[in-house]
Amino acid sequence: MFKKVGVLTKNSGSDVVNIFTTLLKTLSDHNCSIVLCCPKNVSQNFTSYRNVTTDELADKVDLVISVGGDGTLLKCAGMIYPREIPLLGINLGRLGFLTDIQPNEVCQELEDVLKGNFQNEKRCVLGCDVKRKGNKIISSHALNDVVIQKWNTARLISLSTSVDGKFLHLQRSDGIIVATPTGSTAYSLSGGGPILDPRASVLGLVPVCPHSLTNRPIVVNDSARISIKVIADRDGESRVTCDGNLVKDLKPEDEVVVYKKERPINLIHPQNHDHYATLRGKLNWGQNPC
Amino acid sequence: MFKKVGVLTKNSGSDVVNIFTTLLKTLSDHNCSIVLCCPKNVSQNFTSYRNVTTDELADKVDLVISVGGDGTLLKCAGMIYPREIPLLGINLGRLGFLTDIQPNEVCQELEDVLKGNFQNEKRCVLGCDVKRKGNKIISSHALNDVVIQKWNTARLISLSTSVDGKFLHLQRSDGIIVATPTGSTAYSLSGGGPILDPRASVLGLVPVCPHSLTNRPIVVNDSARISIKVIADRDGESRVTCDGNLVKDLKPEDEVVVYKKERPINLIHPQNHDHYATLRGKLNWGQNPC
Amino acid sequence: MFKKVGVLTKNSGSDVVNIFTTLLKTLSDHNCSIVLCCPKNVSQNFTSYRNVTTDELADKVDLVISVGGDGTLLKCAGMIYPREIPLLGINLGRLGFLTDIQPNEVCQELEDVLKGNFQNEKRCVLGCDVKRKGNKIISSHALNDVVIQKWNTARLISLSTSVDGKFLHLQRSDGIIVATPTGSTAYSLSGGGPILDPRASVLGLVPVCPHSLTNRPIVVNDSARISIKVIADRDGESRVTCDGNLVKDLKPEDEVVVYKKERPINLIHPQNHDHYATLRGKLNWGQNPC
Amino acid sequence: MFKKVGVLTKNSGSDVVNIFTTLLKTLSDHNCSIVLCCPKNVSQNFTSYRNVTTDELADKVDLVISVGGDGTLLKCAGMIYPREIPLLGINLGRLGFLTDIQPNEVCQELEDVLKGNFQNEKRCVLGCDVKRKGNKIISSHALNDVVIQKWNTARLISLSTSVDGKFLHLQRSDGIIVATPTGSTAYSLSGGGPILDPRASVLGLVPVCPHSLTNRPIVVNDSARISIKVIADRDGESRVTCDGNLVKDLKPEDEVVVYKKERPINLIHPQNHDHYATLRGKLNWGQNPC
Repeated sequence: MFKKVGVLTKNSGSDVVNIFTTLLKTLSDHNCSIVLCCPKNVSQNFTSYRNVTTDELADKVDLVISVGGDGTLLKCAGMIYPREIPLLGINLGRLGFLTDIQPNEVCQELEDVLKGNFQNEKRCVLGCDVKRKGNKIISSHALNDVVIQKWNTARLISLSTSVDGKFLHLQRSDGIIVATPTGSTAYSLSGGGPILDPRASVLGLVPVCPHSLTNRPIVVNDSARISIKVIADRDGESRVTCDGNLVKDLKPEDEVVVYKKERPINLIHPQNHDHYATLRGKLNWGQNPC
Repeated sequence: MFKKVGVLTKNSGSDVVNIFTTLLKTLSDHNCSIVLCCPKNVSQNFTSYRNVTTDELADKVDLVISVGGDGTLLKCAGMIYPREIPLLGINLGRLGFLTDIQPNEVCQELEDVLKGNFQNEKRCVLGCDVKRKGNKIISSHALNDVVIQKWNTARLISLSTSVDGKFLHLQRSDGIIVATPTGSTAYSLSGGGPILDPRASVLGLVPVCPHSLTNRPIVVNDSARISIKVIADRDGESRVTCDGNLVKDLKPEDEVVVYKKERPINLIHPQNHDHYATLRGKLNWGQNPC
Repeated sequence: MFKKVGVLTKNSGSDVVNIFTTLLKTLSDHNCSIVLCCPKNVSQNFTSYRNVTTDELADKVDLVISVGGDGTLLKCAGMIYPREIPLLGINLGRLGFLTDIQPNEVCQELEDVLKGNFQNEKRCVLGCDVKRKGNKIISSHALNDVVIQKWNTARLISLSTSVDGKFLHLQRSDGIIVATPTGSTAYSLSGGGPILDPRASVLGLVPVCPHSLTNRPIVVNDSARISIKVIADRDGESRVTCDGNLVKDLKPEDEVVVYKKERPINLIHPQNHDHYATLRGKLNWGQNPC
Repeated sequence: MFKKVGVLTKNSGSDVVNIFTTLLKTLSDHNCSIVLCCPKNVSQNFTSYRNVTTDELADKVDLVISVGGDGTLLKCAGMIYPREIPLLGINLGRLGFLTDIQPNEVCQELEDVLKGNFQNEKRCVLGCDVKRKGNKIISSHALNDVVIQKWNTARLISLSTSVDGKFLHLQRSDGIIVATPTGSTAYSLSGGGPILDPRASVLGLVPVCPHSLTNRPIVVNDSARISIKVIADRDGESRVTCDGNLVKDLKPEDEVVVYKKERPINLIHPQNHDHYATLRGKLNWGQNPC
């Protein structure tokens, strides 16, 4: 199945070294070739393997194992995209939405995966083009969300949104979030957006602190081409980010086009993975607050 | 195109008579055969046409024109379902989400429709089966929403929800709404649910006053089979309704299964109909509240 | 300080018996006279004390210790009201908003209280008068909330609300909650209301699933006289409850008047009691959900 | 009553000139001395009156009439504070929360006011001190709100909030709003805060897009001393604003202290002014959205 495996982390410490020890032994036992992509104080414990940059990593492997939190996995996925290398996430003790293997299950779960017993889940990736005077000036992509938000100002910004060429609304707000199902449990949820089932082919449009109380989250088909135009009076008062990373400072009349990319990313889950169980665990459902 | 047309209303008054006069003249001019379904003080003004019951109506026509509000159109649609007779909605002065022809546009818009210039929009219909001890005891259908709600009690009820056989959550609340895109701007919106674009193939699961603050609206694929089980300690403390109509008092352990019906309903819109314009109009978008 | 103490519970089981054993020993050691108010399978373990009804209890003691949850304490407080007997709440393992002594701290905390080291917190009580054709037909009181809600109907009800004789709004909804600060973390919170600090002299008016998206929770001075009139078309479609207990089925034109009662209830807390710590604990603040 | 009156606007155009004409005639008829504070293309029409700066204005008059929107009145109020000069607001056609005299009522309402028939409403003003290493480095005041918000970053910020020296919570969010009742219908409402009746002596603490779904708006007594500490890892990622005006870039460990100032501002209303009518008008209550 998977023969060339990259193991990546941004953390260090004895718990990471312990997980790596288990991981690398299991991978060796299954005759996988291994490269690392991790801080030196982790890699120095495993000197028989090459420690490469993230760029190199993506060229060399057919599976990436990310050890850390959802943020690490997300960043890693963003960097290897659009190459279709599957990702497996191992968390460091606190359950993640994406990193669903617990440290104490690593050995068993990884063996199953290497034997071919796993779920391969495809998650939607957003493309984001910024156009100035009609010309594309920069492109990026996002797994969680594209956010157009006010910047360097305490005033609301005005955004005009169209879907598939049809005008939706002009709203004043702190910004707008275009979220994938993956991103629907991240910033979008803080902004009041709904939880989108990963199997639903939709995107969420979530206004951030809209001036009008009737501007509510809207769910559209993920085939939609979403255009958001900045209607502002000054330069540099709004900005577009992808998964929290700055893409571009926006000027009035700039247009941000958001759409589903053809290629998804591939998340590898244990055979018994249950997304709803993750939701219940992360959101404390069934644990009454009062 | 449409040769046998039924014209329905539940209202009366001179404005209704005026709209009917225009409607019937236009239909006659296009050689349509006409039946009415309306209160006597309307039909007495148009004695050359038969005034029939809603049951008869559905058997006789290939287009129904509903004059009134969204509620009238919804009720009418529910009664003619599952026969695939298209519906055209004319409102009585106040724009509806579904009744999108204004009284003063009746003549022009109807001519266009009769010439074949129209949009035919398919809207999802929900099926709803109530099972007691595993046996189906009653079925119904809904265009807006299936709601399981507390009844005759001031206490919260406990509901266990599964999607496609997978347990989603056990929650204590005043109830849960399963809404279609059509219903997403009705009760679901009052309960905090998102607006679902009619072209998105999804359903909203919206908790009503959930005890846990983390129980948020969830959007699932409309292919999902949603099962909601009553976990209550007394009979008759919860009830299932379809579009606001009582379907059944529920007992503990009763299961309500909600799913998309194969057949949608067909809404006829003018060629230039714009759903987003309706949203903006109904929700006062672009009219700042503060 | 406290010489005649009543110990009340609605629960049973060995943990309750254990807590009672500790409680009664500590009270005896401080020469308190003791009466019980509890189920037989608890009282049979402590036959040297009288087991009385709640009515008797209130006449005989100058402190009531409630063992159980917030619901038990609330019910107990409602029954002894308007007599100004302080209440001390001991929870059964799960922290309550009102029952803030943990089972394992009973001995130490109670000793402190009996020595006079405690906080005496006054919590607002609501009066609720129902008027029909101008005549008061029933009165009740509430520690958490007075709720006017739809009943036996799936349709919204129309309520007209005035504050101190001034018309506030006419709204269609599932109902309206008038909550004290104590009640602001109960049903009101599920309905989207704010958390009211017990030291803020205010009441919350929280609409339940309002038809209009701009009908938001409103906070008014607790000196306000709140009048809510039923504007409904049928009898028995709305109901008023106090702390979840039915007060009266309402008819169209009935008026419910809600106001702060002169006498508060008295909650006894350990000297080191910290309401914010309770909030953090109950609402999982500082424990990130994502 | 009022003998020296300042008339202020930031707008221009024929409607403003018309209102000024009416205003100045009415004031003259009542023997008031008049100064203006307005753009030149307005003042040039009224050359018999001195046109002064806002600073001068505050020293010369015992009533200020603000012609424009709520923003103009707010800015004006902030500049003359803490001098206790009453303010009267005339809107330019669109009702404001604070500017409650319509252009066509100017003559009658102003006459009433000048005869002494008016309401004088006191609105709470917030003080805001920024402390660095324990030393106050800047102070400001706000009529609507003090906001600590993320700045120049797409990441959440961490804020630790205490009330009257007691730790309330540590939360990750886009920021926190401390709102007066006046400000409760401004940015705070967009952020999900409750409407605070101006007669309620409370402040709202409203988190902006909090990471934790259980971090809800909290209402505290306006005697509370609120301390918000920045727990951030980098300089300049958060900022404090008063009524939308930048007060200071914040560094990690900076503390923002917010408290009610002793002096309120005085709003002059017509005798028949009704705050609830303003709420209904501004929020479209009674105008059903669906």
